[in-house]
Amino acid sequence: METRSGNGNDVLQLNPGIVKNLLVKFLKDETQAAGFSKAIVGLSGGVDSALVAALSANALGAKNVLAVIMPHRMSNPQSAKDAELAVGELGIRSETIDITSMVDAYCETYKVRDQVRRGNVMARARMIVLYDLSAREQALVIGTSNKTEILLGYGTLHGDMASAINPIGDLYKTQVWQLAESVGVPGQIVKKKPSADLWSGQTDEGEMGFSYRNVDRLLYYMIDERRKDEELLKHGFKQEFITKVQTMVRKSQFKRRPPLIAKVSYRTVNVDFRYIRDWGR
Amino acid sequence: METRSGNGNDVLQLNPGIVKNLLVKFLKDETQAAGFSKAIVGLSGGVDSALVAALSANALGAKNVLAVIMPHRMSNPQSAKDAELAVGELGIRSETIDITSMVDAYCETYKVRDQVRRGNVMARARMIVLYDLSAREQALVIGTSNKTEILLGYGTLHGDMASAINPIGDLYKTQVWQLAESVGVPGQIVKKKPSADLWSGQTDEGEMGFSYRNVDRLLYYMIDERRKDEELLKHGFKQEFITKVQTMVRKSQFKRRPPLIAKVSYRTVNVDFRYIRDWGR
Repeated sequence: METRSGNGNDVLQLNPGIVKNLLVKFLKDETQAAGFSKAIVGLSGGVDSALVAALSANALGAKNVLAVIMPHRMSNPQSAKDAELAVGELGIRSETIDITSMVDAYCETYKVRDQVRRGNVMARARMIVLYDLSAREQALVIGTSNKTEILLGYGTLHGDMASAINPIGDLYKTQVWQLAESVGVPGQIVKKKPSADLWSGQTDEGEMGFSYRNVDRLLYYMIDERRKDEELLKHGFKQEFITKVQTMVRKSQFKRRPPLIAKVSYRTVNVDFRYIRDWGR
Repeated sequence: METRSGNGNDVLQLNPGIVKNLLVKFLKDETQAAGFSKAIVGLSGGVDSALVAALSANALGAKNVLAVIMPHRMSNPQSAKDAELAVGELGIRSETIDITSMVDAYCETYKVRDQVRRGNVMARARMIVLYDLSAREQALVIGTSNKTEILLGYGTLHGDMASAINPIGDLYKTQVWQLAESVGVPGQIVKKKPSADLWSGQTDEGEMGFSYRNVDRLLYYMIDERRKDEELLKHGFKQEFITKVQTMVRKSQFKRRPPLIAKVSYRTVNVDFRYIRDWGR
């Protein structure tokens, strides 16, 4: 097994300089192509959003990036502190919006007790705030979901998975760590245990039951290299783990695609009317 | 110009019997394929959601459809009454969740005064409720956006445009009227002026500045038949109208597509990793 930061043989090893330049250019070009010059990022205190804020500041200038910190009364207070640390390091603008009253107005009134359901309400309340401020600021919402989360469906549809453009959606979590370290995201943010912070003591790895290091390697071989089970077994992955991850990818497909529309006409949205370039104008 | 219900030459004329069967089969098959047997529909009191509820009841049985009525204190009281009328006609289950406290917890505290921004917050608060109840009920959220709204971007991304599957997303508004009439949606719902009911006196046609009858014909020729401007002019559409509608379609493209992910690997979500069938498993 490779170490997190990788040795020469690690399939997940990045060239951080090249990838950083590519992602900064992506953010610059796509923001401009959409007719915007400003970006808005929900800062959780975790490494993904801190990296996205750093890349955005690099691409658009610190004054054109608004970080939004959105605590709930159940959030770990350290999360907002870490988010503020990232804001200070980058010199970007920030705003704090407490989502407690919004979330509780629904969850308390209608007695939503289940942790997962409450977590989804929180993630979606944060989406509401980000999209609303993006209208006020004329700024694009920049996505912070990484490839591991997107493939496993470990995120909330129309919540933290919602964005206009996403610079890190093709980077596995272990690659996010490498890039974050190299662009100077504070060490305490890079090193802390990943958590969606939707309830006390939640950690991603504890909840999913495997480590990012292991699942990223498996996903790389399975998705990027299209390896069959026999080959994955030869790489040392257990069948049970392979099957579990395949099921997660399959069951979360709906989170990666737009709604399925029943086709009744010549040209249906997202079937044969998909790109403006197809439209020929 | 054709009349709403069309004469023999109307390009938007449906065969309601065929289309109804097709959409009922779509709902039955796709709900089952997703592993569900129940559906949840946000009922606004308008014709689109009433039609979707009727089709869903037909496909899955009335007892397997939950209609959710979600008034805000600013909503027209007639909207909830019309929604209840549809519920009664269909014999489906229903639940009323008032979104006022949720919406106001954000909009009043953070002084969101702009009508459009408030309207988007309302639409997204309704999405939160629908998706939350879909988890409680183990039911699929059925979409209620029609093709006119989707193409013009006349809807809220991650709000009313959010759904798992959408039976009417390939029907223009004028076709929704035809089908709704034929499946027995109450006349007062079919005949009332379309409105998002996000503020008092709002009507779709007033806000957009053209009638559904005209824009649907234009969209049909422009999108379905891929006609050039010269041909559209020959059909009697004014250049100003053509340009306005083209701009609306172009500017709302982002609402019809998943987030754009920066490509850095062999297989990127929604670029070359798009369908489970591509995955070969």
